[in-house]
Amino acid sequence: MGTLVLLRHGESVWNAKGLFTGWVDVDLSAQGEEEARRGGELLKAAGVTPDILHTSLLKRAIRTANLALDAADLHWLPVERSWRLNERHYGALQGKDKAQTREEYGDDQFMTWRRSYDTPPPPIADDDPYSQAGEARYDLLPPELLPRTECLKDVLDRTLPYWYDNIAPDLAAGRTVLVAAHGNSLRALVKHLDGISDADIAGLNIPTGIPLVYELDDEFKPTKPGGTYLDPEAAKAAIEAVANQGKK
Amino acid sequence: MGTLVLLRHGESVWNAKGLFTGWVDVDLSAQGEEEARRGGELLKAAGVTPDILHTSLLKRAIRTANLALDAADLHWLPVERSWRLNERHYGALQGKDKAQTREEYGDDQFMTWRRSYDTPPPPIADDDPYSQAGEARYDLLPPELLPRTECLKDVLDRTLPYWYDNIAPDLAAGRTVLVAAHGNSLRALVKHLDGISDADIAGLNIPTGIPLVYELDDEFKPTKPGGTYLDPEAAKAAIEAVANQGKK
Repeated sequence: MGTLVLLRHGESVWNAKGLFTGWVDVDLSAQGEEEARRGGELLKAAGVTPDILHTSLLKRAIRTANLALDAADLHWLPVERSWRLNERHYGALQGKDKAQTREEYGDDQFMTWRRSYDTPPPPIADDDPYSQAGEARYDLLPPELLPRTECLKDVLDRTLPYWYDNIAPDLAAGRTVLVAAHGNSLRALVKHLDGISDADIAGLNIPTGIPLVYELDDEFKPTKPGGTYLDPEAAKAAIEAVANQGKK
Repeated sequence: MGTLVLLRHGESVWNAKGLFTGWVDVDLSAQGEEEARRGGELLKAAGVTPDILHTSLLKRAIRTANLALDAADLHWLPVERSWRLNERHYGALQGKDKAQTREEYGDDQFMTWRRSYDTPPPPIADDDPYSQAGEARYDLLPPELLPRTECLKDVLDRTLPYWYDNIAPDLAAGRTVLVAAHGNSLRALVKHLDGISDADIAGLNIPTGIPLVYELDDEFKPTKPGGTYLDPEAAKAAIEAVANQGKK
């Protein structure tokens, strides 16, 4: 069985600004680019050499992968991309300021939208400037597949087919598979892999730019639950920082 | 029938230094990065929107494609990569200084190696520092397929299967196909498309970073021989500059 490497994109321009992003296709910040390169250096230093790359259709994940693979001298890897690895669609919250939203709707509603497993934010209108309706990259998606909002459960439901059909076969072939994606599409995958409950997944954060390596057994279960971050100290610090983000 | 867009990578560090490159995996120069971005802007300005990208396995073509597609906001395109789109393997000349080689071997030999259709340079030894023997990215190639040297005819022979099997079907499906590759793999494709003779192909140069667009008929023949450069003036100037490179 192969090795799975999960890589969350580096900081984006909107992470830095504190805006809800979702499917809005914002670029990496300068710090995000640096994180991405460092992610590649961590792979190289650890001797973890992916054979194939899977990415979402969003720039921040694609550029993170490009920069990381460049740093690891693996720019030539075969690539597959899918909307199924995209970040959670944040519905009508896309483009909105997080702090302002929290003030407007209160702590409970804010945390429900951020962390509830099965309650999505209100759907985005197709004519909202931050809607993805009509974007060329989603042309092949029939309208009923293009999300207008998503909760984590929705993300898991649309990510799993890609896991089963596109990623697992590469792993079964003994390959090392790099998945460059997003906080929530990766949380969904980890929930599935580690068998995390609907309640407990709320407490799981994945830091940006630090490769998370899973060795899997014959039933695609992690031999070590939670996997191994290539820089465990930095991962721990980053996870704590994210957990504290929501706190006053 | 779809549209074919050929893009030769921007200037590489070794183009700038005047070294034979071939399969040596050198990076773009700063000027080459600029050319790549401009190539993407030309696509965008012309309203030419590729649906899929094909690249070689070499960094200078891959990064050119990444930078161009970023500039055209098409970073999310599906990608296929193949060694069959690589630059001509330059044999034992790889890593050597062009001017010095010309002096050492004389004009005739030099021009034969550069421009002869069917005379390859001497093969490179597997233990040469500029050999690709043992490189991970060619692991799936059986030893008899990994070139030790190539003439343009060899390049055509190994590029055509990819054209027929991987590019032509996308075109037949009506897609706009971007091929980001190299001076000689693109010359080989153009020789095939435009039916250029073995003798005449010596005089054909493809400038770096300027998309060359072919509309094709039902038999995959160009409706306009030679295609159309998206910046014809710059292409003309660049072609003349390359043609003069060999002259004293």
